[in-house]
Amino acid sequence: MKEQIWAQIIAVKQNSPLVHNITNYVVMNNTANALLAVGASPIMAHAHAELTEMVNIAGALVINIGTLDEYWVKSMLIAAEQANTLGKPWVLDPVGAGATTYRNEVLKQLLKLKPTVIRGNASEIMALASQSNSTKGVDSVHQSNDAVSAALRLNDEFGSVVCISGATDIIVNNDNTTRLSNGNSLMAKVTGLGCTATALTGAFLAVNPQDAFLATTAAMALLGVCGEIAADLSAGPGSLQVNLLDILYNLTEEEFFTTLKIS
Amino acid sequence: MKEQIWAQIIAVKQNSPLVHNITNYVVMNNTANALLAVGASPIMAHAHAELTEMVNIAGALVINIGTLDEYWVKSMLIAAEQANTLGKPWVLDPVGAGATTYRNEVLKQLLKLKPTVIRGNASEIMALASQSNSTKGVDSVHQSNDAVSAALRLNDEFGSVVCISGATDIIVNNDNTTRLSNGNSLMAKVTGLGCTATALTGAFLAVNPQDAFLATTAAMALLGVCGEIAADLSAGPGSLQVNLLDILYNLTEEEFFTTLKIS
Amino acid sequence: MKEQIWAQIIAVKQNSPLVHNITNYVVMNNTANALLAVGASPIMAHAHAELTEMVNIAGALVINIGTLDEYWVKSMLIAAEQANTLGKPWVLDPVGAGATTYRNEVLKQLLKLKPTVIRGNASEIMALASQSNSTKGVDSVHQSNDAVSAALRLNDEFGSVVCISGATDIIVNNDNTTRLSNGNSLMAKVTGLGCTATALTGAFLAVNPQDAFLATTAAMALLGVCGEIAADLSAGPGSLQVNLLDILYNLTEEEFFTTLKIS
Repeated sequence: MKEQIWAQIIAVKQNSPLVHNITNYVVMNNTANALLAVGASPIMAHAHAELTEMVNIAGALVINIGTLDEYWVKSMLIAAEQANTLGKPWVLDPVGAGATTYRNEVLKQLLKLKPTVIRGNASEIMALASQSNSTKGVDSVHQSNDAVSAALRLNDEFGSVVCISGATDIIVNNDNTTRLSNGNSLMAKVTGLGCTATALTGAFLAVNPQDAFLATTAAMALLGVCGEIAADLSAGPGSLQVNLLDILYNLTEEEFFTTLKIS
Repeated sequence: MKEQIWAQIIAVKQNSPLVHNITNYVVMNNTANALLAVGASPIMAHAHAELTEMVNIAGALVINIGTLDEYWVKSMLIAAEQANTLGKPWVLDPVGAGATTYRNEVLKQLLKLKPTVIRGNASEIMALASQSNSTKGVDSVHQSNDAVSAALRLNDEFGSVVCISGATDIIVNNDNTTRLSNGNSLMAKVTGLGCTATALTGAFLAVNPQDAFLATTAAMALLGVCGEIAADLSAGPGSLQVNLLDILYNLTEEEFFTTLKIS
Repeated sequence: MKEQIWAQIIAVKQNSPLVHNITNYVVMNNTANALLAVGASPIMAHAHAELTEMVNIAGALVINIGTLDEYWVKSMLIAAEQANTLGKPWVLDPVGAGATTYRNEVLKQLLKLKPTVIRGNASEIMALASQSNSTKGVDSVHQSNDAVSAALRLNDEFGSVVCISGATDIIVNNDNTTRLSNGNSLMAKVTGLGCTATALTGAFLAVNPQDAFLATTAAMALLGVCGEIAADLSAGPGSLQVNLLDILYNLTEEEFFTTLKIS
């Protein structure tokens, strides 16, 4: 599978897919930079009047509810519907699922539009599956393993590939489970690396819409490997953010194969 | 007092308080990263429909009017009222006070809700106390000392601890004045370090709501010390931003005690 | 001309002009930091109720449509009209021109207000001149030279100095064409350096509103030279972003003169 994943990484670099992001204010800059570093071409746009056309020209859509409000929720719904109409893949990042009633209601509407992929931390995936209010803000208080049955329920109901990210990233669909054990705990001290994972998943879906499981696995593997290498070079979260972009841009096949921990 | 301040810094790391920010677009990423670096857990949310619940789960609220508009002002008012209802501390950053009539009117409404702490530069604090139009944008044209009487008036009228930040940071309430002389002039060349000071104040208020004066002093001391150490390592404002996050994350008790200049 | 350009760079440092930005969410932080690094004082504000007063106190206005929506478009129109009323210079960054009908319609309205300067990549300038839908997102698929006749048409119709940025930056008005060949291809891997070029143009217009051609040339020359020097020091796009701010802050006259490639 390692070779298959590397082939996806090369495909993103060569095809430079256009990824349309409707995401939160906190991470827009980082996720745009991460997309550029891996070879994709990011666009951020949310005006109702242009969303249909934007989705038309994009290879994939990323929806992240982090700093949602009424206007942006409508943007998300319009764009996800258009992605479905065109058969284009889209990925949902349910930031803060479970924290408020409003977030839960918005997520219910988005789930009905059957995201190709859902990526969240364990607490978010569990809240999404149970619609319970158990999240402490946007940081996970659960381990990835705790959320596997929740991920399976989401896959069963909505058909989505589900990625639970954390110390171990677990990617789940109805007949596959892959575990990735790269990364570094320092990554949790940089805001929005989960959102970056979601954005990268969009890039990989754009070049491989036929195999969302492989696309998600490739995105998570790339970020985990690069985050791990970058953290080893970094004195703290400030330098990690910088080094991560450099490594995403420069990663070699050899570094990737020797660092990747997949099972 | 040094030991008391250090104890606050440790308390933030150990308790990982959830800090709810309604802040400006320019600094959201930086302030989230600074909060993570000191051990706090940031959340940014502004949708009217979820503010009450967000304030319910947060330990403190940060309101920064930098890129205000009608929707966001309503968000600020809803959240500050809920913080007051629950007796939770909140801190106001009056960015650009005095620059426009609209800002002044919004600030009047927010002041009526009696912020636990107000943090601004000298020009902003003076404008806030006098409601005069004397600000040149968001950068201060006054020294901290010029604003002490304005700070005392604000404390007298609204009960807020007032922090005037600048080359010297001055923290004022009705019976205390503390001066901090750390930092480096290069910090003024990085956007939003004042906003970062305000966000950190929120984290310290969350772990010590009983003593807003000490919480504010601790936040300003930590940022000043780390900014000073980081600036010594930095070639310019780009590297300062990176090094600051690394130092906020790594600061030792010994570095803190030998660098802190307090009177 | 090199000495004239350097004199502009010094003038920005000495006068610290206030530059009012109505720009996109992705780049607000970077462009604020770039403005601070060159000595300018950035302000970001978009509330309808305060725009007239903000333009009154600013030296120049920057309008960037990257993440436009109905509210922000109205902000842009109010501010550009006020700039015209006061005879203050303003610069337009037509991000994603040609990508959607909505963008094209908004750009038509903004062009009617005769921007002092227009800065875009070749694809954007060509789309702006032809109102054709040929852009692939926000990244250019054309070379600067392809867009010169489009730039001349825009200058002819709206009187604007037009800057086509790319591997070669071309600045055009009715009787002058200047080519700058600094920079590095790595700059295209950092989001928003085009937007930074536009913001810096605002700073130079503020100190030299009489000569928009020289102001634009100086801004582009400074960014190209600093980007080139910074890229040589950088392992990838993450470190480039950091080094660029450091070099913008520290650039010496000698480095500028030995690096600048102008014709």
